[in-house]
Amino acid sequence: MTTVSIVYHSGYGHTEKVAEAVGAGVKDAGATLHMIKVGADGKIADAEWELLNASDAIIFGAPTYMGSVSGPFKMFMDSTSRVWMSREWKDKLAGGFSNSLSMSGDKLTTLFQMAILASQQGMIWVSQAELNTSTSEPGKSGDAASINRIGSYLGLMTQADNVAPQDSPNSGDLKTAEMFGKRMVTAAKRWAA
Amino acid sequence: MTTVSIVYHSGYGHTEKVAEAVGAGVKDAGATLHMIKVGADGKIADAEWELLNASDAIIFGAPTYMGSVSGPFKMFMDSTSRVWMSREWKDKLAGGFSNSLSMSGDKLTTLFQMAILASQQGMIWVSQAELNTSTSEPGKSGDAASINRIGSYLGLMTQADNVAPQDSPNSGDLKTAEMFGKRMVTAAKRWAA
Amino acid sequence: MTTVSIVYHSGYGHTEKVAEAVGAGVKDAGATLHMIKVGADGKIADAEWELLNASDAIIFGAPTYMGSVSGPFKMFMDSTSRVWMSREWKDKLAGGFSNSLSMSGDKLTTLFQMAILASQQGMIWVSQAELNTSTSEPGKSGDAASINRIGSYLGLMTQADNVAPQDSPNSGDLKTAEMFGKRMVTAAKRWAA
Amino acid sequence: MTTVSIVYHSGYGHTEKVAEAVGAGVKDAGATLHMIKVGADGKIADAEWELLNASDAIIFGAPTYMGSVSGPFKMFMDSTSRVWMSREWKDKLAGGFSNSLSMSGDKLTTLFQMAILASQQGMIWVSQAELNTSTSEPGKSGDAASINRIGSYLGLMTQADNVAPQDSPNSGDLKTAEMFGKRMVTAAKRWAA
Repeated sequence: MTTVSIVYHSGYGHTEKVAEAVGAGVKDAGATLHMIKVGADGKIADAEWELLNASDAIIFGAPTYMGSVSGPFKMFMDSTSRVWMSREWKDKLAGGFSNSLSMSGDKLTTLFQMAILASQQGMIWVSQAELNTSTSEPGKSGDAASINRIGSYLGLMTQADNVAPQDSPNSGDLKTAEMFGKRMVTAAKRWAA
Repeated sequence: MTTVSIVYHSGYGHTEKVAEAVGAGVKDAGATLHMIKVGADGKIADAEWELLNASDAIIFGAPTYMGSVSGPFKMFMDSTSRVWMSREWKDKLAGGFSNSLSMSGDKLTTLFQMAILASQQGMIWVSQAELNTSTSEPGKSGDAASINRIGSYLGLMTQADNVAPQDSPNSGDLKTAEMFGKRMVTAAKRWAA
Repeated sequence: MTTVSIVYHSGYGHTEKVAEAVGAGVKDAGATLHMIKVGADGKIADAEWELLNASDAIIFGAPTYMGSVSGPFKMFMDSTSRVWMSREWKDKLAGGFSNSLSMSGDKLTTLFQMAILASQQGMIWVSQAELNTSTSEPGKSGDAASINRIGSYLGLMTQADNVAPQDSPNSGDLKTAEMFGKRMVTAAKRWAA
Repeated sequence: MTTVSIVYHSGYGHTEKVAEAVGAGVKDAGATLHMIKVGADGKIADAEWELLNASDAIIFGAPTYMGSVSGPFKMFMDSTSRVWMSREWKDKLAGGFSNSLSMSGDKLTTLFQMAILASQQGMIWVSQAELNTSTSEPGKSGDAASINRIGSYLGLMTQADNVAPQDSPNSGDLKTAEMFGKRMVTAAKRWAA
């Protein structure tokens, strides 16, 4: 059985909503899913470390704050030094996503940090492979139903307005998140074969 | 007299339109402006090298192709090694902008490359300081009249649809470009004082 | 009087030693220096926020952990959102440095994060402008007395072995740090004129 | 039969020497190897495009010039837009390496650009997973026989002195390159299974 873990931090609920959409894609593709939420102190439970160590793929998720990965998630990233020397995550698959208030909001810095972390752990990085489906009519770029409307490939980027998570990110972003979860499972199954 | 040069590459005219808007801001702020267009072979004329060497500030501009600075502009960047050893650009001001078809389109990689080039040349990097003025109503993020609608700070990001340059990028992006040109002049005057 | 603050995190003392060398350069160049150490919880005192707000230039310093800025320093970076809306740091000068165990150790990610933070705050980024003075004899690259032996320009990079801070980083790295501190003062005086 | 292509640019022969070491690892691990050299104009032959399209894994290699990927290699990267729409490289494995004169020399920017390109093409990125084997005695970091002496993980970094390619990069860097080639084959075999 393919096992995928999503380890994420969410400050106001928007990143959690994206994490849930990625998770829905993971389950829909027939994998076992572990949702692991990083606390405001950057910590996860010992049992959750075991779940990560036993996963075929780990998806990292965090909001972008002040232009890079949120502080609590960085505290978590630092704590993965416990598996660095043991190389326990070596050759696992990895992927990442980030949400912020604006379109770019420098989310690429966050994805870059996640890819670097994965590389330091010896992991294999799975890109976001869906093309942007926005029409090219003026003013239509980034419309609500677009897949990959922001145009991100190293990982998944979503954008949330300053409203409650039930209203944002939009349906296209959440659909892209779901497709990203499925892609990770497809890759994990192929990698495990 | 404060002198600002904009050295840019443009494949289809959209980046040139942005360069012209930045240039309008530069002139409006009372500086001498040099517009220097990099050819498809990455070259500029000898006289243009002299203009760059005599400038108080240099603004780099290029489209983002396949996730980083366009090839012709990178050829130009490499050719600045001629001023690297002489340190002729040391302590000049620098800034950068990039345009692409999608919102992110990994334009941050391009700005990052430009900031790294400027740093290797010992230059001082001027950020894009305007906040995003999009409303936070759902679906309004990134509307056409927004200043800094993409949410970029290391430099200026604009987005152009796949239509003729007269129709895209939109008015908000061009206004942001103009403000960026003015900011560069304000900084150059203060730096020269 | 020109005022420069160094706000830094140090886990084992090596980054603190670099911060002190940068600080020595700042004082030697005739500026008022504030050394502000970020706690393991990412916090600084209220009075220290006032010192930062009153500085002409702010130098960010942190170790690179797992390929990007240390968690505690990222917690501090997030907390600068309190000055983001007020734009209190707009047009101040900024610079950065990072230390880690290996030569690259992905320290460029950390400097990149710092430059992005500075840009979001509307600051002006001062590069590390000293060229690498290593000889080009085989095996001599990165020898102990070299200035900028690692070859870093966006900011200052130093490397510390896994020994006590009194023995590492080496003299060349510390000398480079001192020169970086002086450069920041020279820039701040010119900017304030 | 597993097929791996190394597509690279080399200005003075040092990057080519690294490419050959990576290639030796690829062959030693039992894969078919294609060495494809990008010209100064950024071009490769039509038959070479076919070889790339038929490969299980593609390794990108280039020197770092002025802080990011060499101009000719960027011209090549831009020309991969011909396979972007067709998604011919989607789900292939990718990896990258860069060489420069100094230890960092901002080579991480080059690796980052390569990982972004691979992601835009929908590829899966294979990290450099060997830990740095330098001793932690003061002054021994980065000694000539070290594996991964520079401490790079997103891809392979090597450093060459300003001497003929037969004398530099050193044996440790070339050994690391060979191990990187082997790792790519191991991953490609597993991925193809």
